[in-house]
Amino acid sequence: MATKISGIAASDGIGIAKVYMLTDPDLSFDATTVQDTEAEKKRYDDARAVTEKELNLIRAKALENFGQDEAEIFDAHLAMLSDPEFIKQVQSVIDQQSCNAEQALQSVAKQFADTLRAMTDNAYMQERATDVEDVTKRVLSHLLDRPLPNLALIQEPVIVVSHDLTPSVTAQINKQFVKGILVDLGGRTSHSAIMSRTLEIPAIVGTETVTKTVKNGDMAIVDGSNGVGLINPSDAELADYQQRQADFSAQQEALKQLKTQASVSADGQHFTVAANIGTPKDMDGVTNFGAEAIGLFRTEFLYMDSDQLPTEDQQFEAYKTVVQQMNGKPVVIRTMDIGGDKNLSYWKLPKEMNPFLGYRAIRISLDRQDIFRTQLRALLRASAYGKLGIMFPMIATLEELRQAKAIFNEEKTKLVEAGVKVGDDIQLGMMIEIPNSALFADRFAKEVDFFSIGTNDLIQYTFAADRGNERVSYLYQPYHPALLRLIKHVIDCAHREGTTVAMCGEMAGDKIAVPLLMGLGLDEFSMSATSILRTRGLMKTIDTKQAAALAQKAIDTCDTCDEVKQLVEGATKA
Amino acid sequence: MATKISGIAASDGIGIAKVYMLTDPDLSFDATTVQDTEAEKKRYDDARAVTEKELNLIRAKALENFGQDEAEIFDAHLAMLSDPEFIKQVQSVIDQQSCNAEQALQSVAKQFADTLRAMTDNAYMQERATDVEDVTKRVLSHLLDRPLPNLALIQEPVIVVSHDLTPSVTAQINKQFVKGILVDLGGRTSHSAIMSRTLEIPAIVGTETVTKTVKNGDMAIVDGSNGVGLINPSDAELADYQQRQADFSAQQEALKQLKTQASVSADGQHFTVAANIGTPKDMDGVTNFGAEAIGLFRTEFLYMDSDQLPTEDQQFEAYKTVVQQMNGKPVVIRTMDIGGDKNLSYWKLPKEMNPFLGYRAIRISLDRQDIFRTQLRALLRASAYGKLGIMFPMIATLEELRQAKAIFNEEKTKLVEAGVKVGDDIQLGMMIEIPNSALFADRFAKEVDFFSIGTNDLIQYTFAADRGNERVSYLYQPYHPALLRLIKHVIDCAHREGTTVAMCGEMAGDKIAVPLLMGLGLDEFSMSATSILRTRGLMKTIDTKQAAALAQKAIDTCDTCDEVKQLVEGATKA
Repeated sequence: MATKISGIAASDGIGIAKVYMLTDPDLSFDATTVQDTEAEKKRYDDARAVTEKELNLIRAKALENFGQDEAEIFDAHLAMLSDPEFIKQVQSVIDQQSCNAEQALQSVAKQFADTLRAMTDNAYMQERATDVEDVTKRVLSHLLDRPLPNLALIQEPVIVVSHDLTPSVTAQINKQFVKGILVDLGGRTSHSAIMSRTLEIPAIVGTETVTKTVKNGDMAIVDGSNGVGLINPSDAELADYQQRQADFSAQQEALKQLKTQASVSADGQHFTVAANIGTPKDMDGVTNFGAEAIGLFRTEFLYMDSDQLPTEDQQFEAYKTVVQQMNGKPVVIRTMDIGGDKNLSYWKLPKEMNPFLGYRAIRISLDRQDIFRTQLRALLRASAYGKLGIMFPMIATLEELRQAKAIFNEEKTKLVEAGVKVGDDIQLGMMIEIPNSALFADRFAKEVDFFSIGTNDLIQYTFAADRGNERVSYLYQPYHPALLRLIKHVIDCAHREGTTVAMCGEMAGDKIAVPLLMGLGLDEFSMSATSILRTRGLMKTIDTKQAAALAQKAIDTCDTCDEVKQLVEGATKA
Repeated sequence: MATKISGIAASDGIGIAKVYMLTDPDLSFDATTVQDTEAEKKRYDDARAVTEKELNLIRAKALENFGQDEAEIFDAHLAMLSDPEFIKQVQSVIDQQSCNAEQALQSVAKQFADTLRAMTDNAYMQERATDVEDVTKRVLSHLLDRPLPNLALIQEPVIVVSHDLTPSVTAQINKQFVKGILVDLGGRTSHSAIMSRTLEIPAIVGTETVTKTVKNGDMAIVDGSNGVGLINPSDAELADYQQRQADFSAQQEALKQLKTQASVSADGQHFTVAANIGTPKDMDGVTNFGAEAIGLFRTEFLYMDSDQLPTEDQQFEAYKTVVQQMNGKPVVIRTMDIGGDKNLSYWKLPKEMNPFLGYRAIRISLDRQDIFRTQLRALLRASAYGKLGIMFPMIATLEELRQAKAIFNEEKTKLVEAGVKVGDDIQLGMMIEIPNSALFADRFAKEVDFFSIGTNDLIQYTFAADRGNERVSYLYQPYHPALLRLIKHVIDCAHREGTTVAMCGEMAGDKIAVPLLMGLGLDEFSMSATSILRTRGLMKTIDTKQAAALAQKAIDTCDTCDEVKQLVEGATKA
């Protein structure tokens, strides 16, 4: 009988292939005394040479699959590998202590990493400690001839099984061969889950023990839509899942037909299905999946992928590119949301005990108005090239909103007086992601053109639970009746004032949440581009009057998030 | 003309005296080469001897004013001062480098502190680094003959002016001489503000610059009720404030008459004014100020002031003491709220990025049921001795509440079956301090006997702002109309189910909030014992029907926290 694996459904679809264990080999070794130190130094040189080739290959794959930013991680590794000071020290330890290369390498690496990590006032250098350890592990694996698993080199279909997927590992995933992913750790919003959805590879995360229950070469089925995996399935099971896989592919093909269609419910009500993007490079996906708008263009990349604050012109170019490419369709750009878990290498934000409850987003913008005004000018200039909405993140009080709007108007007036062309219909909006702004939506709605509900933050504050903290992840409850009631309050208040309501969190593309949100009257659903067609397809099957009754029933009768989930599953299956 | 100082009104009353600057002298020095190293070592010994005397004196004052716990801080300092390894190293540096004692002391101390701080997996040892630095500063001040200001030694009335007040400094404050406090940093809930209220010393915190605008010997007036200070006042101003001081004292005397009276509004409606306590030692204040109940007995002291988990019997004794002393008046004991900013030296909680959004309070209790069940058994046994309420902290969902209640009932049944006597009317309640529980109060109210609104946490989650973070402290907005509306929702939902509502946060004793909360129908106000009589006095002046109209007006017409404050000030002055 097949072994069943269960976990969190992280990325839709069905993958069937042999298991490739992405777990580290045992790299322990004994420290030995050597006679021939020259030979030992040669071993070290040879291992470095092989490592260099390997890293170059991985770098090339990363560039091909993910672009420049991911590739640069490996530039840092390559630089570390050929650091002359490091090499000299390893050689000198071999010479002086007559020890094997493994021992010399490990002791020098430990010293380097410890020194870097002790630089507590320099986050950049502290992070380099991890690079030292990564590279050392790789060289060690060649010295010991126990190669690290290497995704870049896979040449046949596999199911990747791993304890966790780090960014440097996902950078090596080749969609052509990786047919499914099974991971011990992670939740639906973890890095590995998000990356697998971006890559459109079926995935199950949070299995807790999959690395302990399977081995290289096992046959595996990953049903990423339901969070179920089967190891060494029977012929009947295999046939069953092959059929389901074919059905899923057919369904995906059918969804492609929806690319140029409007997003309409079964009873003919129109919604907007929009895309969330992180950089102008994401525009390919937006086009490929037929987004009707960009509901969230995060601008953090401009601040984070740089070694200084971005200039007005750099920002203008990025904003203009996106606005122009959308060709008159609406683009909502969010002003910078740094702080929290997003730090800058060149500007040291204060160290905080609870960064998610700290100095971030609009709080920084209103405090550092020089940075904020530069961004607003760039946005104003870009507004001449299309249909622009500007959105302020982390607004908690009317004072903050009014101050942000006043600064915007000052910069607008100055540009207009200087003869710079700006759009004549810029929409101003705010994120609803802090409980107080949701509670006070009736007043906020009078002073903005649109709301965008940011569910990841709104949920984490409403439940007082860090969404990245595994121990409290059970409190990430997007269908909780009290949360639905709060969302209903936001939508009702907005509509009374003619303000539109979008949602740009994870929840907007979730198959349980979408019927509820349609029922509550949400206007715009903004999500990863890869979820757009599935959501548009789902919308076609939903009657909004039934959905409204369903949402009201959830609010009125359910006590828990699980009860709401069961209610919706029961209603949509029927 | 007098220089005016403004800041946050932190502790009521008026103090008039000369300024005592509690700021560090310049302790910089040059490293020099000495000929006579024996003389230099003698200088070090002498400085240590003086320091030891001084620390013993401070320790005695701390014991007298604050009790054993505060005194123990100085035991740690004394132990550090006479650490033989430390002394030997300083002497050896003097010998080997022929340097002055200052230089030797400083370099050895730095090395010790760095080593301790590098023990990142041992929070206890890391904290010892601060002790090393504190003690070193003190020895250095004697070597340089530039003594540190020393509160313990003051023998005349003073106004203490400081950048901040650390626990080790407040431990030295003698109420007999310290007539007022002016501090640069801090908010209303900072350590310095809370301590000044406990000591009943007029205080203004958050002045930002007072240490830069005054000097030793200036005459100063501290109006801690209004957050206004005057430096070098005119004779007319002095006379005015002396009159106000006399009025305040008369008022305080009058309040003492209220000690045995009920808490009744002007129109005869009864409320409960209760005390928050941290340990059984706080019972003196409870008795002195005539609390009608204990609205919050925090149990963290049992876990934190110890080097292991408290036994059932240790807990039972503590709970029984308090319940018995209250002599039939209600006592609400909260189950442990560790985690967040409260750590244990003997049990390493996971390091979290956002501890306030992490593994704490009931989340730990439900996960570590062994600890929880021990506490519940101790509480059940204590319930036989008086009127006990048990309150669960940080409840976010009904599942958590139901699980906590189920565990309680299991332990109760086991004890009863074993023939142990337990109270027959134990009340079960929960904190409302997470937005979701406030939003879902209608459902929670059906399943508990009482709510207690914890405003400090509720405000910080509702505004997504860490109350301890100065950069976002402007978002601590207890009178915000959306928050008032949420509190009204909680009270209304509770009353529909016959559930009582208490408030045990800072807000319950705040003079702006009290009229609003009376208007909203709050049943019980639980606060520091020192605020009880003032609050009871204030209640006598308030008509509940007018207060209800005022609260509704605040909710309906005010846009901001400041507008509500002005509204209430206008209404209560008139």
